[in-house]
Amino acid sequence: MTTATRSEHDLLGDRDVPADAYWGVHTLRATENFPITGTPISAYPHLVDALAAVKEAAALANEELGLLAPKKAAAIVAACREIRAGKLHDQFVVDVVQGGAGTSTNMNANEVVANRALELLGHAKGEYRYLHPNEDVNLGQSTNDVYPTAVKIATVFAVRGLLDAMSVLQDAFAHKAVEFRDVLKMGRTQLQDAVPMTLGQEFSAYAVMLDEDRSRLAEAVELIHEINLGATAIGTGLNAPAGYAESARRHLAALTGLPLVTAANLVEATQDCGAFVQMSGVLKRIAVKLSKSCNDLRLLSSGPRAGLGEINLPPVQAGSSIMPGKVNPVIPEVVNQVAFEVIGNDVTITMAAEAGQLQLNAFEPIILHSLSESITHLRAACLTLAERCVWGITANTEALRATVENSIGLVTALNPHIGYTAATDIAKEALATGRGVAELVLEKGLLPAETLAALLRPEVLAGSGGQAAV
Amino acid sequence: MTTATRSEHDLLGDRDVPADAYWGVHTLRATENFPITGTPISAYPHLVDALAAVKEAAALANEELGLLAPKKAAAIVAACREIRAGKLHDQFVVDVVQGGAGTSTNMNANEVVANRALELLGHAKGEYRYLHPNEDVNLGQSTNDVYPTAVKIATVFAVRGLLDAMSVLQDAFAHKAVEFRDVLKMGRTQLQDAVPMTLGQEFSAYAVMLDEDRSRLAEAVELIHEINLGATAIGTGLNAPAGYAESARRHLAALTGLPLVTAANLVEATQDCGAFVQMSGVLKRIAVKLSKSCNDLRLLSSGPRAGLGEINLPPVQAGSSIMPGKVNPVIPEVVNQVAFEVIGNDVTITMAAEAGQLQLNAFEPIILHSLSESITHLRAACLTLAERCVWGITANTEALRATVENSIGLVTALNPHIGYTAATDIAKEALATGRGVAELVLEKGLLPAETLAALLRPEVLAGSGGQAAV
Amino acid sequence: MTTATRSEHDLLGDRDVPADAYWGVHTLRATENFPITGTPISAYPHLVDALAAVKEAAALANEELGLLAPKKAAAIVAACREIRAGKLHDQFVVDVVQGGAGTSTNMNANEVVANRALELLGHAKGEYRYLHPNEDVNLGQSTNDVYPTAVKIATVFAVRGLLDAMSVLQDAFAHKAVEFRDVLKMGRTQLQDAVPMTLGQEFSAYAVMLDEDRSRLAEAVELIHEINLGATAIGTGLNAPAGYAESARRHLAALTGLPLVTAANLVEATQDCGAFVQMSGVLKRIAVKLSKSCNDLRLLSSGPRAGLGEINLPPVQAGSSIMPGKVNPVIPEVVNQVAFEVIGNDVTITMAAEAGQLQLNAFEPIILHSLSESITHLRAACLTLAERCVWGITANTEALRATVENSIGLVTALNPHIGYTAATDIAKEALATGRGVAELVLEKGLLPAETLAALLRPEVLAGSGGQAAV
Amino acid sequence: MTTATRSEHDLLGDRDVPADAYWGVHTLRATENFPITGTPISAYPHLVDALAAVKEAAALANEELGLLAPKKAAAIVAACREIRAGKLHDQFVVDVVQGGAGTSTNMNANEVVANRALELLGHAKGEYRYLHPNEDVNLGQSTNDVYPTAVKIATVFAVRGLLDAMSVLQDAFAHKAVEFRDVLKMGRTQLQDAVPMTLGQEFSAYAVMLDEDRSRLAEAVELIHEINLGATAIGTGLNAPAGYAESARRHLAALTGLPLVTAANLVEATQDCGAFVQMSGVLKRIAVKLSKSCNDLRLLSSGPRAGLGEINLPPVQAGSSIMPGKVNPVIPEVVNQVAFEVIGNDVTITMAAEAGQLQLNAFEPIILHSLSESITHLRAACLTLAERCVWGITANTEALRATVENSIGLVTALNPHIGYTAATDIAKEALATGRGVAELVLEKGLLPAETLAALLRPEVLAGSGGQAAV
Repeated sequence: MTTATRSEHDLLGDRDVPADAYWGVHTLRATENFPITGTPISAYPHLVDALAAVKEAAALANEELGLLAPKKAAAIVAACREIRAGKLHDQFVVDVVQGGAGTSTNMNANEVVANRALELLGHAKGEYRYLHPNEDVNLGQSTNDVYPTAVKIATVFAVRGLLDAMSVLQDAFAHKAVEFRDVLKMGRTQLQDAVPMTLGQEFSAYAVMLDEDRSRLAEAVELIHEINLGATAIGTGLNAPAGYAESARRHLAALTGLPLVTAANLVEATQDCGAFVQMSGVLKRIAVKLSKSCNDLRLLSSGPRAGLGEINLPPVQAGSSIMPGKVNPVIPEVVNQVAFEVIGNDVTITMAAEAGQLQLNAFEPIILHSLSESITHLRAACLTLAERCVWGITANTEALRATVENSIGLVTALNPHIGYTAATDIAKEALATGRGVAELVLEKGLLPAETLAALLRPEVLAGSGGQAAV
Repeated sequence: MTTATRSEHDLLGDRDVPADAYWGVHTLRATENFPITGTPISAYPHLVDALAAVKEAAALANEELGLLAPKKAAAIVAACREIRAGKLHDQFVVDVVQGGAGTSTNMNANEVVANRALELLGHAKGEYRYLHPNEDVNLGQSTNDVYPTAVKIATVFAVRGLLDAMSVLQDAFAHKAVEFRDVLKMGRTQLQDAVPMTLGQEFSAYAVMLDEDRSRLAEAVELIHEINLGATAIGTGLNAPAGYAESARRHLAALTGLPLVTAANLVEATQDCGAFVQMSGVLKRIAVKLSKSCNDLRLLSSGPRAGLGEINLPPVQAGSSIMPGKVNPVIPEVVNQVAFEVIGNDVTITMAAEAGQLQLNAFEPIILHSLSESITHLRAACLTLAERCVWGITANTEALRATVENSIGLVTALNPHIGYTAATDIAKEALATGRGVAELVLEKGLLPAETLAALLRPEVLAGSGGQAAV
Repeated sequence: MTTATRSEHDLLGDRDVPADAYWGVHTLRATENFPITGTPISAYPHLVDALAAVKEAAALANEELGLLAPKKAAAIVAACREIRAGKLHDQFVVDVVQGGAGTSTNMNANEVVANRALELLGHAKGEYRYLHPNEDVNLGQSTNDVYPTAVKIATVFAVRGLLDAMSVLQDAFAHKAVEFRDVLKMGRTQLQDAVPMTLGQEFSAYAVMLDEDRSRLAEAVELIHEINLGATAIGTGLNAPAGYAESARRHLAALTGLPLVTAANLVEATQDCGAFVQMSGVLKRIAVKLSKSCNDLRLLSSGPRAGLGEINLPPVQAGSSIMPGKVNPVIPEVVNQVAFEVIGNDVTITMAAEAGQLQLNAFEPIILHSLSESITHLRAACLTLAERCVWGITANTEALRATVENSIGLVTALNPHIGYTAATDIAKEALATGRGVAELVLEKGLLPAETLAALLRPEVLAGSGGQAAV
Repeated sequence: MTTATRSEHDLLGDRDVPADAYWGVHTLRATENFPITGTPISAYPHLVDALAAVKEAAALANEELGLLAPKKAAAIVAACREIRAGKLHDQFVVDVVQGGAGTSTNMNANEVVANRALELLGHAKGEYRYLHPNEDVNLGQSTNDVYPTAVKIATVFAVRGLLDAMSVLQDAFAHKAVEFRDVLKMGRTQLQDAVPMTLGQEFSAYAVMLDEDRSRLAEAVELIHEINLGATAIGTGLNAPAGYAESARRHLAALTGLPLVTAANLVEATQDCGAFVQMSGVLKRIAVKLSKSCNDLRLLSSGPRAGLGEINLPPVQAGSSIMPGKVNPVIPEVVNQVAFEVIGNDVTITMAAEAGQLQLNAFEPIILHSLSESITHLRAACLTLAERCVWGITANTEALRATVENSIGLVTALNPHIGYTAATDIAKEALATGRGVAELVLEKGLLPAETLAALLRPEVLAGSGGQAAV
């Protein structure tokens, strides 16, 4: 059986491509050159949509400036809308990790749009004399402005998904903070018993962390709205006529609904990956704190009998293939792992950004890849953590209260009344003898019983350091 | 239309699983709990094969020790062999990034093996009273010895693929080293002209680097042959009878052809990820030097007219969507990006290893994931670099020789004859006036013409620092 | 010879400390416990000053609230002012990398302030019954609010120094951008000749990068103004009376001149290192781009004869112990190394932040240490780069213009007039034959001579992508 | 008051240097160019000694080959011996982080040796016509072979110190493993109660980890014995006569007592930093496991009342400025921080190694700096951990035994006898009711009392997984 093909031509000669492929010779060579990860561009639907939006905006700008015949523009626009509606994504076949600063991704887009537009105009795929991937679809553009612009738009939409997921997780923690507002427990510093607090305060802190991180993420995504469309090859705008950059930006902003702005210095903007480094840095910050929170959840739920046993995570699967009845904190554990991945990705992005040379950074594809993974995995992690863990957490209230009553840390509250030095002696004796702080204070006549009782009331001890802040 | 299901039971209750699924309730819950990367275990065929080999070896050991009925053992063995022959891989559906230290991967394997074995025994899937995923397939095992053992075996086979690919790339560089053995050029330190060498020496260095890195990789893989099979939950071997660990190891070594050894201290071996950290560290070393070599290739081939223009990389695709005729070093560029990914993965693995607690590291799944990506992507990068770049490199011999003859660095060779101070003056004057070193030396009468000519012969200048060593 | 000592007492017993030491028993034990880096706290004068400011503010607040006798408060304030005036810094002797979340640093400060205050009150050092390090100097405080507050204040002042240095470097680049505004050269993407630009545009980009990075750094430092003073041990404010936090903040803001705000949720603020992670992430961003700029400077100045030779860095020292006349780009090289250090420090800070547990992060000392090194070394790097390199850079104007006239990249400008396909053919022929683009276009009659000349005018080619933006 | 000076000359002109300085004009310029860290070369005494050894070996080789007059050679040798005996170290004043691939360090060494040798010959400092820093002291050498050779020798000696310290720590853990051999406790996986073990097994694992890491470190240091002395500028050996490399190596091996070998391919060896990357990777591995062990120690000693409370770390200082009697795990905490630093340094070294270009890596100074810090800080951390923490650890034996008797994990031991499914039901009921496993098994008649008692004997439960292996 033979497969029907059509012949296409490029700088290096002629090649047959499958007759039914919307992609062409440039894409073909790229698939051969980059058999690296096996993950095609189509695995990043936000990016495919963004590429189509850029091509559509450019066609509209070119038509507006009289550079592209209305008929051609209409066909390109129609093809792009199909893609943005979810069609033809399977035609974006180049490996997402590729050499060439995204040229193959841009070429893949140009070819798919051109061939679909040709069909819409009543021509066969490959009849580029009627509408050309480079001369028409890519008109006024260069990979070096198209690709980063599309990556930024895709990133904005991906980040919105993450912001929503963080909000869901924040709500879960905040809900628990209220639920546990009266559950008294020992606070710890350096894993050593410190002074009393409420479990509500503890969960409130997790909620506040997420709230702050969401603010930082929202700031970082602002920087991503600055694009270099119209810069063409190196930022000098060669071949992009006056008015093109502004028109294309306007159309792209309208198509995407994003407040896009054109960078003031396009030469700088074309070579600079600072906004991606900043974004990754903030994702790393989120990962760090999410991981810390999960470490805490795993620690607080350790047990059931030889651990801290302060809280119970909802069981979501059997924990062991050998130990019956064992239930493990598998949801926090998977979140930890995503955090480690995000932190590693940050190093990858850092190295890629540092390796840019002169007027361009050729390594944007790995930046896209790593950034996309960090964002989408963090989103999945937040949702899973909220839904399969946090909402179902319960507290061992009685046991927690007992640890407070039994604690040596209570003595701290007496510092202002008996002094640090006397308090230290009480603490030493309590530790050595196993006795309680209160009884020792009374025994030594350091404070009257009523005063002591008033000082050690839980409400006083736990203070108000944050409960209300969520 | 209704889908046929069967009901299965676990610690958390009853659940319906698709009737035709070889996996069961534990796998079902895991797929619901870990919707993280979308990459199933089946994407790592080496790991699936290794899991089957471990299950097969355990069954043989259990039969040998009289713990498993021969009929059951035979069915388990047969099922495992099918898997190792490439069947049922699509039944390994849990996300590769998962909480639980690999429990879900082990459970997935237990269930698939059990259900296929049940079929082979003439029972329906799910009739675990005849053969049980935990009580029979997992007999004498725990995730905590099965999973790391399987990961190690999978890693060994993956690394072999990488070693082969590095060898292919080394050959390509070594071949070019011979081809370019007489191509004289300026060596550079700190990007400044230094002293003459041959292009063959330059390529020889790349070959030697790979050779050394292969040695390091081979050493690191040695450490991976140490397994903890028989350790069960925490290394104490609870429920694994005397003789089991040795028997299972022997069978597994035979099945895989690997010189596996059982760790001397199983408690330590069960919690220790040192061998993975070491392996990742060596992969990072490889990445560092591969990236450096690609940086050099891109630099030496810069141009065509405003760059160094020393060598030409074979064109493999058009380089630009806007700049006609431009050809870019896309193959080295993609290798650079893989290197950055490997370096980032090393940080991920480092953090995961550090996060282990007490008797176990719960984060081995992300270690597996990152390690696998590093190894397979490096392999693809080496092959692509060899086949689509290095073999086709050509040299601009005449231009290179001209740079040597024109260079100021020649004066270094005269140090022993006219002294560092006089040589410095010559160099300064040559730089200021644009004149040649030789003519200035003659003009000043510092050396007789014949002596000078003899000292500046290319063969002398380029020395023998390494050409022969490949 | 005997050294005079005094005896001090703590939880662990009695110890002799040198009679003339302002530090006491807690400091003594800490110096014995942490013989790690050999770098004492005194190496961070911003931190010592900040600690004194916190102690002074706390004393004023305590006096205001009637908790501290005016005489004691006055003595503490006077001691703190001496420290802030640069005295007694040599008494801060504990290793900066220490266990205990900064407790030893706080204790060292308490002891030095107390003993100096005792002297001012007419007592001998060590007569703590008159004024006590913990009960008076540390009144209402805990390491867990004092230390991070002091670290933040120290960081703000250190960052100001960096912002100034970045400004100096930005000015140098901007000045060169103007100086080189008419120097036409080839722009490059992926190290391959692309299209023309000016050297002024190239330097302008470096200036703009710094400008943007300064904005990011200024944003990050804003976050550092949020403090947790008054939180005491875990954020519940135990032992800090009503009004204390606000009063202490007010005094501290006045003393430092900083717009400090108290965190809304003190439990969260006490355990959260997010602001430091964010700061380090921005420092890393700065490092990435500074390193990229230095890579470019080294590349553009490569030669003198076998390199790109576009610019000349001012020689600042002989470059080689063996190669006469060699001058190396040593200043950019040292900046690259600082950048690598900053990027590594970011990983250290990330790990330390992730490792926080429950109500506190015990690893703030290494965060302080790494952050301080990053900031101060970046500052030194920016100043050195500006003063010893950028200001002295000269351009090889004639050679640069020749590369433009000789370039194949010119053909890109003809795309809109002859089409991408025809332009590709011209480019191929030019490359193969060594001929010029213009002559080939004329020879083939693709464009009239006047049109061609107009299209290839330098002013047109280099466009306006950024020159004006600085 | 005027300071006496002498005038020296270099490529850039004349400069006054202090008359009593052993360093000269090259050093002077370097101190002005690199005001980065404030840490002079002299802070690395191993490096200063190694530089002197290299200079001495070169002089002996040059004399042997008839290239250096015996009188000059003798003076150089005498000066080097003084340095190696600890003198003149304060004359190594250049900042350790410097541009120029170590040239300034080498120049500093050349100048100090030359000026001291001049004095020994009866001349004044600066009278280089009698003995010249470059022409005599640096004869046959280049920074590019001298500097990495010296760094390697310094590293070998530093690593020996680390190996010794690791051995001390291993002994401490091993001693405790024996002491705690009969202390039964619950093992944990994923922080959840798993199955019984002994505290001795737990500490034995820490000892074994160190033992394995020492083996890896010893392997890595082997690679450092390969030097490139004789390679001169780029590895071609220009200006180094036949026999020089071998003679210099032989003398250097004799002087240092190290089994040094000359690299087979000197061009490769001169540009390759692989051995440093490998070394740093192993240091990172050590850091990872040391940090994990310290995390465990902190966790196991958490309390005293609301934590796990399994072991007690010896108190080494008061833990809090506000909480009386609190004692924190400050020693493990400082070790954690060193580990984080080492992991960050590994990223710095990785980036520096990757950034090498063509025939040289210009960034070796930061590699030296980071590597030295990692090694010396790890050494200090190991010693402090052994001496101030591990040796003094005590166990809460009774409490530990109680957790075993009370545990649900006991049921795992009954798997082979009652089956995983029945065991799961017992576990569930025990958890829900708070009752014991044994009583439930008896109540349900699943096993006879004597059988049950035999199965649950501690010696059986804890197995033999590793105790004996230390």
